[in-house]
Amino acid sequence: MRVAVLGATGLVGREMIGLLEERDFPVDELLPLASPRSAGAEVLFRGRPWKIQAVTEQSFEGVDLALFSAGSGPSRLWAPLAARSGAVVVDNSSAWRMDPQTPLVVPEVNGKAALRHRGIIANPNCATIQAVVAAWPLHREASLSYLGAVTFQSVSGTGRDALEELEGGARAVLSGEEPVSSIYPHPIAFNALPHIGTFDDDGVSEEEWKMVRESRKIMDLPDLAVSCTTVRVPVFRGHSEALLLQFSSDLSPQRAREILCAAPGVVVVDEPALARYPLARETAGTDPVYVGRIRRDTGREKTLALWVVSDNLRKGAALNAVQICETLLEGGALRP
Amino acid sequence: MRVAVLGATGLVGREMIGLLEERDFPVDELLPLASPRSAGAEVLFRGRPWKIQAVTEQSFEGVDLALFSAGSGPSRLWAPLAARSGAVVVDNSSAWRMDPQTPLVVPEVNGKAALRHRGIIANPNCATIQAVVAAWPLHREASLSYLGAVTFQSVSGTGRDALEELEGGARAVLSGEEPVSSIYPHPIAFNALPHIGTFDDDGVSEEEWKMVRESRKIMDLPDLAVSCTTVRVPVFRGHSEALLLQFSSDLSPQRAREILCAAPGVVVVDEPALARYPLARETAGTDPVYVGRIRRDTGREKTLALWVVSDNLRKGAALNAVQICETLLEGGALRP
Repeated sequence: MRVAVLGATGLVGREMIGLLEERDFPVDELLPLASPRSAGAEVLFRGRPWKIQAVTEQSFEGVDLALFSAGSGPSRLWAPLAARSGAVVVDNSSAWRMDPQTPLVVPEVNGKAALRHRGIIANPNCATIQAVVAAWPLHREASLSYLGAVTFQSVSGTGRDALEELEGGARAVLSGEEPVSSIYPHPIAFNALPHIGTFDDDGVSEEEWKMVRESRKIMDLPDLAVSCTTVRVPVFRGHSEALLLQFSSDLSPQRAREILCAAPGVVVVDEPALARYPLARETAGTDPVYVGRIRRDTGREKTLALWVVSDNLRKGAALNAVQICETLLEGGALRP
Repeated sequence: MRVAVLGATGLVGREMIGLLEERDFPVDELLPLASPRSAGAEVLFRGRPWKIQAVTEQSFEGVDLALFSAGSGPSRLWAPLAARSGAVVVDNSSAWRMDPQTPLVVPEVNGKAALRHRGIIANPNCATIQAVVAAWPLHREASLSYLGAVTFQSVSGTGRDALEELEGGARAVLSGEEPVSSIYPHPIAFNALPHIGTFDDDGVSEEEWKMVRESRKIMDLPDLAVSCTTVRVPVFRGHSEALLLQFSSDLSPQRAREILCAAPGVVVVDEPALARYPLARETAGTDPVYVGRIRRDTGREKTLALWVVSDNLRKGAALNAVQICETLLEGGALRP
């Protein structure tokens, strides 16, 4: 099995390569790809260095599986070409997510959709993945009619430069200096920016539309009502979300806890009296979607409030992509 | 006019004294009070130092107006005594807020309620004040039926020790060390804590109940549906809130902007395409409630989404208290 990783030097690309090793995915040959700027560097995989190559039209010949995490532009350009070369592409960008021909997959929710691919499978947005992993098992019990989400998103979702901008900004503020911002439109250190992606004419951000549209597609609930405000916060790694889930039938917090404790990919941390609830700092570097503060909403009937935290680089990106690869392998939808 | 300030050494107490000077409140004699631990220190007011005295049963004799910001315990103890001595107490703690005899006042919303006091007037919770200042003028136009709030609250709401804990924690993380937490149950630096106040048996926090109950009382909407999740974020000063407001009649974002532009105490910052929206870092130290990202909610009918930011020590605490004093003075409800 020849496995290409496009964007091998990025935060998500490195996590992908690490997870392929950690989960013992049957890689015979790893092909780390990147822009010409990053070519020549090396990545470690199974204890030895693999040279990063610049992506070209020939890169995907003989490749079985290609994991992409290089942004929408490169995905639009290279994914169709890789698919025509016979590779199955698992793409972490937003380029193909809402394409009707492209499955948008969270294995815990709609893994089977991956098997109906036409060469490209889209990995959903980080904030959406953790929301649907938590919402789906509850939907199966009580039929979800509304999803309200307000997000507290870490800077690692933006990339390595954003980690440096938060670190540098925090150092500046602590030294009594003005923080500089170039990645974000305003300083992120000790601040909260309600701005992820560009805004449409109605003032809704790209990231908010991703939550609305992707959650509907993944759960196959085209009429699901979704409210969303997405906010960048000064956290390095791990997205937190305050969710409201309204159901067609009543669902008690206790029953929701039972369901979530048994749900794949979910860990319930819900003892608020002992100050136990999911926290971004503690979940960084781990795999699960953590759910806590499960309670009846004070405002709406048949509604639960939840606090959902996950590592945006793992389940929110690289892990979900590798799980899609595993689903394909198990379902016989990868060329062996 | 003799004006006492109980809690004169705290973050809010200092802001109160600063605002009495800045707004030229007719103070003839300032009486800064604190616990015996802080007695003997001095505060600056109108260019000269005033000695802080330990609060005793005799402290309020001859006092016309007493601003309290020393927590619920001292307020329960001293406020009735001060009122019996003839002072009007404006209390920033939660001790008297839900007492049916005690007006709970945001001057832009229900200033007249202050004039019906029986000696104690309660200053609402910080997060609630900025929400109702934004919601009220829109309610008057279109009749509010639902308030959904998720908060991003700064550490200054907890007090000076919390500022130090955030600063120290951030320095530790940036040095590769484990941050220490004693004020908060978990490190606040580079984290998001969904925990403000204690939790009830159903998992709802005190701070969340404050938003629910206080907003109903201030706006005199006892049946208002209110959802709330309150979260502490690593911001020094300034609370941000993602609000959803559902109305009985349709209200366009453009009309809401017009109303809010004309509303007292509100500044609209709403040009998302130019990356202009309210930000905690920029609002720190200023008076208004800033509103931006005014848009139709993607999830609910007749619902607007807003991003509301204000300085929790100013409008969220000290400024609102001083405005209550001004309301009393103008309404002839203070002994001259």
